[in-house]
Amino acid sequence: MHSFEQLSQQFAQYFDQRRFPAEPATLYDANEYFLKMGGKRVRPVLCLMGNELFDDIKPDAWEVATAIELFHNFTLIHDDIMDKAPLRRGMETLHKKYGESTAILAGDVMQVAAYEHLNKVNTTFLHQVLGLFNTTARQVCEGQQIDMDFEKQEMVGHEEYLKMIELKTSVLLAASLKMGAILGGAGERNQKLLYEFGRKLGLAFQVQDDYLDAFGDPDKFGKQIGGDILANKKTFLLIHALEATPPAQQKELKSLLQNNSEDKVQKVLQLFRDCKVDDWALQLKNKFLDEAFNHLEDIAVLSVRKQPLKQLALFLVQREH
Amino acid sequence: MHSFEQLSQQFAQYFDQRRFPAEPATLYDANEYFLKMGGKRVRPVLCLMGNELFDDIKPDAWEVATAIELFHNFTLIHDDIMDKAPLRRGMETLHKKYGESTAILAGDVMQVAAYEHLNKVNTTFLHQVLGLFNTTARQVCEGQQIDMDFEKQEMVGHEEYLKMIELKTSVLLAASLKMGAILGGAGERNQKLLYEFGRKLGLAFQVQDDYLDAFGDPDKFGKQIGGDILANKKTFLLIHALEATPPAQQKELKSLLQNNSEDKVQKVLQLFRDCKVDDWALQLKNKFLDEAFNHLEDIAVLSVRKQPLKQLALFLVQREH
Repeated sequence: MHSFEQLSQQFAQYFDQRRFPAEPATLYDANEYFLKMGGKRVRPVLCLMGNELFDDIKPDAWEVATAIELFHNFTLIHDDIMDKAPLRRGMETLHKKYGESTAILAGDVMQVAAYEHLNKVNTTFLHQVLGLFNTTARQVCEGQQIDMDFEKQEMVGHEEYLKMIELKTSVLLAASLKMGAILGGAGERNQKLLYEFGRKLGLAFQVQDDYLDAFGDPDKFGKQIGGDILANKKTFLLIHALEATPPAQQKELKSLLQNNSEDKVQKVLQLFRDCKVDDWALQLKNKFLDEAFNHLEDIAVLSVRKQPLKQLALFLVQREH
Repeated sequence: MHSFEQLSQQFAQYFDQRRFPAEPATLYDANEYFLKMGGKRVRPVLCLMGNELFDDIKPDAWEVATAIELFHNFTLIHDDIMDKAPLRRGMETLHKKYGESTAILAGDVMQVAAYEHLNKVNTTFLHQVLGLFNTTARQVCEGQQIDMDFEKQEMVGHEEYLKMIELKTSVLLAASLKMGAILGGAGERNQKLLYEFGRKLGLAFQVQDDYLDAFGDPDKFGKQIGGDILANKKTFLLIHALEATPPAQQKELKSLLQNNSEDKVQKVLQLFRDCKVDDWALQLKNKFLDEAFNHLEDIAVLSVRKQPLKQLALFLVQREH
């Protein structure tokens, strides 16, 4: 058994090499540039951990993990275009550096590269893994579209937002674990439980993300506090505040959203605190985390094998950056 | 055995139905809009014909044909964004009607849908078909990038252009035939010969495309003659003219390309005729067509089974629109 840190290191060593051919350089250099930005590589490592929960890590798991990471990067490249984001991890986004057309194509070919790695999976598992991968890829696209639709809506309900986050973020975490479980020989019930663990963990992860943007420690957060507030982004916090505050404060909040005054972040945060959105968010996060752990608990393997996943889950939802 | 027209009709009947779920409508209505524009559906029918060259059409061939047509449409959606094309088949392009972000996503999810259909293929063939599909998809992306690179180059060589056309256009025609052949139980040699037939046919097809833009009959062509010339697009004709004309005319051609005078098309066409680019193009087309037919000839099945493919090839390279 390995910890997340150990597998993370092993995966980085395995993954961080030139992944695309030399020519045409105008296309593949862009792909290499993007991959070199790095990342936490959470999803591929979840795949390895999902495998190791049930058995030693199979060679196929490294291929699927690679496919997952390539797919994730493909979505980031295209999301950055849609969000008109100039920077990622402090570096120019791909479309800023290489132009939008190449960014579209670089994403497209990175998706193809993902499927090339999937096609290395043993025939016994190929159909099932490919099926889950496809379903998940489709859901991630749907989530991104719904997220864009929300930008045009004044009000978004808690349930709608939850559904969007599930599609955009949770299902890929859940599917990464489940693909690993499939390769590790898990039975259907265990596969499902692990998927549910990942799904709930993804929701807890997003609550933490939304929470940090508003209430994070500026020294540790690494980004400007209140970025979501400035961008009028729908978050768990804003949606709850709009639903939970008394009419007078709700009116104030809405008028704050409509203009970008200098003290917007400060005033919105005060309103958040007044209606105890911070406490509520921490409770919600813990609810999702508890649900995740209950699913993990029910998986029929020795408890000691579950330790790395428990530690990772706690790390992901307690992180301060 | 069926003719191209018969299979084309059967495929249209099979394919032309709602292909995407209802929700999120902001995403999937865009996909449905694009598919409703129609098209000749040449590639999926080539897959069916590649199968029928060797055996009765297998149910899997319909799935692969569907995957191919979805993939082709995905590339068209993204190409239209890159080309900033306002119209396709006289209708607004997807990005014009639904916005660029949705167009990027609609393409992405259409590619996923293609892979969903591939995953319905019998396990026996899945690995091989998926492998060929992936390789081809990657090549098509490379071809599109090289085509975009050409826009920034003053001179493009004949060989470079040929390589680009092969990637952007030919390999998908060739692979469509070969995937059908695989499902029809063809041996490796026959598969390869059919692929080569498709590759050469694709080149002949492109020569005809380039030829029609310059020398087509305006009444039959359906588009404005000289569109490629106005856009300074590299074509077989322009590349050959730049390579084959004497220095004085080459200089004149280059200066014509640098500005958009009213009589640009007329003058470029005259230069084309002066150096007999039209005759050269027809010869080149026939050379590719002959090579294609030689490969078809060598395939070890009864000659009568090859008739539909021969007819289709002649139709594709002799069309006037």
